[in-house]
Amino acid sequence: MEAIEELQALLKKLPGMGGKSAMRLSYHLIRTDSSYNKALGDAIATIKDKIHPCPICGCYTEHDICSYCSDPARDRSILCIVEEPQDVLSIASSGAYNGLFHVLGGAINPLGGIGPDKLSFPSMMKRIGEGGFREIIIATNPTEEGDTTALYIRHLLKDRDDLTITRLASGLPIGGELGYADRLTLARSLRGRIRL
Amino acid sequence: MEAIEELQALLKKLPGMGGKSAMRLSYHLIRTDSSYNKALGDAIATIKDKIHPCPICGCYTEHDICSYCSDPARDRSILCIVEEPQDVLSIASSGAYNGLFHVLGGAINPLGGIGPDKLSFPSMMKRIGEGGFREIIIATNPTEEGDTTALYIRHLLKDRDDLTITRLASGLPIGGELGYADRLTLARSLRGRIRL
Repeated sequence: MEAIEELQALLKKLPGMGGKSAMRLSYHLIRTDSSYNKALGDAIATIKDKIHPCPICGCYTEHDICSYCSDPARDRSILCIVEEPQDVLSIASSGAYNGLFHVLGGAINPLGGIGPDKLSFPSMMKRIGEGGFREIIIATNPTEEGDTTALYIRHLLKDRDDLTITRLASGLPIGGELGYADRLTLARSLRGRIRL
Repeated sequence: MEAIEELQALLKKLPGMGGKSAMRLSYHLIRTDSSYNKALGDAIATIKDKIHPCPICGCYTEHDICSYCSDPARDRSILCIVEEPQDVLSIASSGAYNGLFHVLGGAINPLGGIGPDKLSFPSMMKRIGEGGFREIIIATNPTEEGDTTALYIRHLLKDRDDLTITRLASGLPIGGELGYADRLTLARSLRGRIRL
């Protein structure tokens, strides 16, 4: 295979990348400067060697312990439970949360073959069992799997009356319009309506 | 900078890649298998070392002469003139063309500082002057710059009565609907209407 076709074939395997996009991107890479290509190529080739899951929370880090778990400025009395490592970044960059995280590694999805045993509930329970937390925020996705997982966590912690257990609010996205909201989102925003 | 942030910063420089897409892509790359990352990273890092413009037509190749110019099965009596190397691939993969190509390296754009002297007209005229062609297809883009360039080529070849000089048809895209077509495309599809 020619070098360009090979590059395009590899690019096409990326999520959301069609044949046309891969073609455009490959020609873009031919026109950009060599040093950028080498930097990007090297970053892609080595990313998996450089990072690993944090042994405490499960988010990705290149240090022994991730920057969240090791940051003395974060509130160690709140734990936010998320499905995937990238969710940590999303929540941290919202600017509205300064506590610790726990990454489950997915959500319960029996049809997809993901039972509770595939997720990091043991280490989650160990962390919570060691004490120090006053609130557990369940930040799984507002999907059937995420909701199931949230209920499962609620069940696991049913005897912990000392803990405040919360779930992220669901509803209309900020800047969205009622007319564009789907029925389920609208229904949830009604059920979850707040007093002004 | 952390390795993931660095990868995201590099990905964000790609065309059409926003912060969210770069984030998603970086986490995707963390989840895929190492060998794919190394192959893609290497392909990106080395693409510019592997390919160069074909000395005859100007499209990208990793051989001395490109696969189109060196293919004995292609019709050497038709020359298709395009703006960019990627246009060669688009036209070749349409399956409706089996002749040779010539890449101009852009289109005439006086406001953008691209005069005819910046494009490969000398080598184009040399190839056409050496004879053997019966038709020249001008396949520049249906834009102001592409149209200007087409007229310029028409002018360069004004004394070549032996050549059939054609231009790609413009009009409604296949599968498109009238209601979605812009005014200029619709006007051109009317002017270029064909008898059934």
